[in-house]
Amino acid sequence: MTATHHFGFDIEASCPTTSARAGVFQTPHGPVRTPAFMPVGTRATVKGLMPRDLAEVGSQMLLANTLHLHLRPGEDVVERLGGLHAMMGWDGPILTDSGGYQVFSMSDLCSLDANGASFKSVVDGSSVRFTPERVMDIQKKLGADVIMAFDHCPAVPTDRAQVSAANERTHLWLDRCVARHQENGGIAGGQALFGIVQGGAFEDLRRASVEAVCSHDLAGYAIGGVSVGEAPELIGRTVRAVAPLLPADRPRYLMGVGTPKDFFDAVLSGVDLFDCVTPTRNARNHTAFTSRGRVNVRNRGFTEDAGPLDPECDCVACTRFSVGVLRHLCTTGEMLAGTLLSLHNLRFFHALMERMRASIIAGTLEQLEAEVKERYSRRVSPEDIQESGRATCP
Amino acid sequence: MTATHHFGFDIEASCPTTSARAGVFQTPHGPVRTPAFMPVGTRATVKGLMPRDLAEVGSQMLLANTLHLHLRPGEDVVERLGGLHAMMGWDGPILTDSGGYQVFSMSDLCSLDANGASFKSVVDGSSVRFTPERVMDIQKKLGADVIMAFDHCPAVPTDRAQVSAANERTHLWLDRCVARHQENGGIAGGQALFGIVQGGAFEDLRRASVEAVCSHDLAGYAIGGVSVGEAPELIGRTVRAVAPLLPADRPRYLMGVGTPKDFFDAVLSGVDLFDCVTPTRNARNHTAFTSRGRVNVRNRGFTEDAGPLDPECDCVACTRFSVGVLRHLCTTGEMLAGTLLSLHNLRFFHALMERMRASIIAGTLEQLEAEVKERYSRRVSPEDIQESGRATCP
Repeated sequence: MTATHHFGFDIEASCPTTSARAGVFQTPHGPVRTPAFMPVGTRATVKGLMPRDLAEVGSQMLLANTLHLHLRPGEDVVERLGGLHAMMGWDGPILTDSGGYQVFSMSDLCSLDANGASFKSVVDGSSVRFTPERVMDIQKKLGADVIMAFDHCPAVPTDRAQVSAANERTHLWLDRCVARHQENGGIAGGQALFGIVQGGAFEDLRRASVEAVCSHDLAGYAIGGVSVGEAPELIGRTVRAVAPLLPADRPRYLMGVGTPKDFFDAVLSGVDLFDCVTPTRNARNHTAFTSRGRVNVRNRGFTEDAGPLDPECDCVACTRFSVGVLRHLCTTGEMLAGTLLSLHNLRFFHALMERMRASIIAGTLEQLEAEVKERYSRRVSPEDIQESGRATCP
Repeated sequence: MTATHHFGFDIEASCPTTSARAGVFQTPHGPVRTPAFMPVGTRATVKGLMPRDLAEVGSQMLLANTLHLHLRPGEDVVERLGGLHAMMGWDGPILTDSGGYQVFSMSDLCSLDANGASFKSVVDGSSVRFTPERVMDIQKKLGADVIMAFDHCPAVPTDRAQVSAANERTHLWLDRCVARHQENGGIAGGQALFGIVQGGAFEDLRRASVEAVCSHDLAGYAIGGVSVGEAPELIGRTVRAVAPLLPADRPRYLMGVGTPKDFFDAVLSGVDLFDCVTPTRNARNHTAFTSRGRVNVRNRGFTEDAGPLDPECDCVACTRFSVGVLRHLCTTGEMLAGTLLSLHNLRFFHALMERMRASIIAGTLEQLEAEVKERYSRRVSPEDIQESGRATCP
């Protein structure tokens, strides 16, 4: 297990009836207790949140984006500013996405060849060239604990020819990523490379991708190309088919997914790590995830409500402010609305992961599943919350 | 001294050569060590800042605005949500401005009569009527520790006829404010009323206003109608003329002023309390006040600067982030830029007040004055800062 020397993954408990497991993923910046959700800090900041507040709501590992940071301020600047940990004011683990998804999701501006991708900068219109080697070099300078392979995420996961071609390219590029990662110091240099499985909505292409990607001895493996516009039921089907095929002794990371229900299905299939803009982007749009369901905090019914947004939540938004105050901050367009609701939504996501982890260890995951699926995906009104009877906010 | 029973003001030290004093203003929500700067939280939130962070940079007493909170969410809603302290998540002292300045600064929409002012809501265009009694009632419901009299702040402080008429109205309205404040429970009800001196740029009208306003035994007295567009040198002249005339045993509050130099002059004249949007509004526009002078944080010269914005500052922006990172957050339009720079600017203002206070107690205020006036009002470039030699950011 030499490859994972600095990035060990220990499974603490496995669910007896499902593929779920509770683990600890070691990094040079500390451990990540899994299953874990990673907040997204695209431009080296989780929008509007202070590092201390992130740590207090239970964030363990943060994400940043290679493409965005390459465009601004540039990896050389990041390096001179002390790397991503210094930039984010974050002493814990950080992962950088390779930008593969971002490059191809703006594919009208992107031209692809066997060697890499060329596209125009959304910042200043200049030409940018990404190759597997370049993306490895950029991520080396950014300095995250975990870096992602440069993959080709096909725009339409149900177009077999396109998905097949993207698969092939992804695998060839992974070979080159692995080689450059080694040249850059490899895992002994303090940075682990995760491979990304593609294959769209096709089970045989997914299996082929697992085989190719897992032929490399890497510290972790990701499932990419999921939740990119396909039907919701396809997400679960893909994850259920792919996750169990990935090496059991390495962390499995489902990229860009998603909602409490998605997490649950994926954890049952053996996924350990998640990231998504869901909690923070929804927060800035004033939607909160609560133990009663999803809530539009601008709802007029909250105007005079002196109770907490979620009486089961221990975050600062729920313990120091009433939902009536949160609504006031939303309707007046105050910055603090996005900040407080982001902290709340992240606390909700982290607390859910913590509950899943505890349930895996206790062997009670199935009871939790029923509760989560019943409660967490509903959209609820102020009346639903108020009727359920709450203590008022302290 | 029955009137100030709950709102005692103790002078700890007086400067031997100037009118400056170091005091402690007692409120039902704790003491305010003066001279003190009060951050402005117009709509019951200091934009983008968490209460804990405000306390940590040294904020003691916060401001909110009667007019804005009357329009949204309305004083009845604020009351039902537990009052301003609950809304702001702030257990310390709070002061509400009466809205007098705001009403008359949009005077094209405002019609004035002997009884009060009528104007259109900027939120929904509805008609709003403010009278002295109404403003007292609104502030009672908002629940701040200190409330301000409803005054008439003349739009042009150098138009003698206008200023004279505004003076007369302000004094008549103060009689009515005092009467209604008494009916509402007075100071024994836990809320102190401060009177506001007007008189524009005319020394005799200012003296007349001091006499009229101070004929009421109030817990504190404010100087209003300053820094409303007049020449900068007039600000100092007015404050120097008026402050010493106010009762020495009550806190003196200079409204809406301003910059480090203004503070210094006012403290020398015996002013104790200040408020202004300067630190927070400048922060959101990416201008920082530092020990070297004013800084445009977007300056390209900071791009690769791994040192702190201000090496003499102990705020989170200066101890956890480099100025290069702050510039990145500014140029990418990230929310955290405004939050971090607001905390920094507030820390700078509070630290200056703390240094003035310590110097008054130590009898060394004059030495500090020379330093502050030399350093704090300059606009400086990255080179000025970098040349002065700095340690790099931790």
